[in-house]
Amino acid sequence: MSPTAIIIVIGNEILSGRTQDTNVNYIAKKLASVGIKLKEVRIIPDDRKVIVHALKTLRSTVDYVFTTGGIGPTHDDITSDCVAEAFGVSNPIHEESFKKLENYVGAKNFNKARQRMAHLPLGAVPIPNPISVAPGYIMGNVYVMAGVPQIMRTMFDAILPTLRHGDPIISRTWYAFDALEGAIAEGLSTLQQTYPQIEIGSYPFYDLNGKDGVALVAKGQDQTSVKEAAKKIRSLLISIGYDPHEGEPKP
Amino acid sequence: MSPTAIIIVIGNEILSGRTQDTNVNYIAKKLASVGIKLKEVRIIPDDRKVIVHALKTLRSTVDYVFTTGGIGPTHDDITSDCVAEAFGVSNPIHEESFKKLENYVGAKNFNKARQRMAHLPLGAVPIPNPISVAPGYIMGNVYVMAGVPQIMRTMFDAILPTLRHGDPIISRTWYAFDALEGAIAEGLSTLQQTYPQIEIGSYPFYDLNGKDGVALVAKGQDQTSVKEAAKKIRSLLISIGYDPHEGEPKP
Repeated sequence: MSPTAIIIVIGNEILSGRTQDTNVNYIAKKLASVGIKLKEVRIIPDDRKVIVHALKTLRSTVDYVFTTGGIGPTHDDITSDCVAEAFGVSNPIHEESFKKLENYVGAKNFNKARQRMAHLPLGAVPIPNPISVAPGYIMGNVYVMAGVPQIMRTMFDAILPTLRHGDPIISRTWYAFDALEGAIAEGLSTLQQTYPQIEIGSYPFYDLNGKDGVALVAKGQDQTSVKEAAKKIRSLLISIGYDPHEGEPKP
Repeated sequence: MSPTAIIIVIGNEILSGRTQDTNVNYIAKKLASVGIKLKEVRIIPDDRKVIVHALKTLRSTVDYVFTTGGIGPTHDDITSDCVAEAFGVSNPIHEESFKKLENYVGAKNFNKARQRMAHLPLGAVPIPNPISVAPGYIMGNVYVMAGVPQIMRTMFDAILPTLRHGDPIISRTWYAFDALEGAIAEGLSTLQQTYPQIEIGSYPFYDLNGKDGVALVAKGQDQTSVKEAAKKIRSLLISIGYDPHEGEPKP
């Protein structure tokens, strides 16, 4: 069985539309590449009750929970308090992180607000932050990361090799310009029935120059079936009169 | 009280990392502009049980549920079946939509797969689709839209004026280059306590040229408090020695 994961995005700025999230896509791609199945993403506000509830209810349903956001020094950074509450532990100073941060910002700048970033739920294992030192951490199966994409990425890249991997999910994609989903759908449905172990997806696209078409994706952990199905997708497209191209659509 | 909303994004392609979602940000911004509070976003797979469960449990918790994705002609487009099941109704042919689609694609091309797009849960009110005719629809407080951004946008723009609006959420933002959250956090926390009715957010940024800093946002429905708080945020930044700029950060 493939390991499973959920991402919890913590941040009013995503829900208000101020910020376009890009962390989910970054994490999702990398999880797929190591065969970890992303089952759900939940985007929730900086609200203590909501965060604690999400952590409590979701962490028992998957192998890994990844959170992004809310571990900075400001009043709206409440993720660590919430993780501590969800696990029923305190949120004390983590001595090693405290010293590193104090060293980094200088003793005279190491005010109460910054010190908050050195509080980790009791038992948490820090995830290093080479950019701005304030750590993420691992608490049970919950991986707590920063919201700033540059920092989140270094944290996620550091933990990825430590996770249990599944068989990588491989995929092949055929693009057919000017193709219409409605013309392909019946043949595709038959193909899906022939290959129940893989996932066949159909995604209309409009590229930057206003060209449109459909991308057809065969995806799964069994390389042979994916290859076979992709071959049949190509034949299907040709039989309808389309001219399929593999790879990304040309601009 | 402001009306509330949840977005359910339905699509394996988001969870696999194949597609970077942009629909949430589009909807979130517009909801904020008319004072509808987006409480949560849930991204879920093309899985019948999961979709039905999400619809059933979430729709009673908010005024509006918006869904994107899964209403095309292919086998992985199962949103309408799920909405029908969640509401305990059938999913029959919607005559008017059927005729429009048949007209649009031509009788001889109007195959079984395309006809699926003319099935709407019993009682649903169509949302017109000027781009490719296959409609979205309104079922109770659930607004079902396409996943393709171009189509989703025309659908959402059409329904937005029909929703109950709250007082628009206004915001003012100060950008301080080279500023550090840790230096501002304590003053900001005091400010937040002074203005409990508005939301004060702090968002570190890295711009395209590698410049970094912090964006400080005062946001709420009471214009006077937002203005006052924004003024005080500016003073706070200046008192620390930063040079705040209003508006978007310059590239």
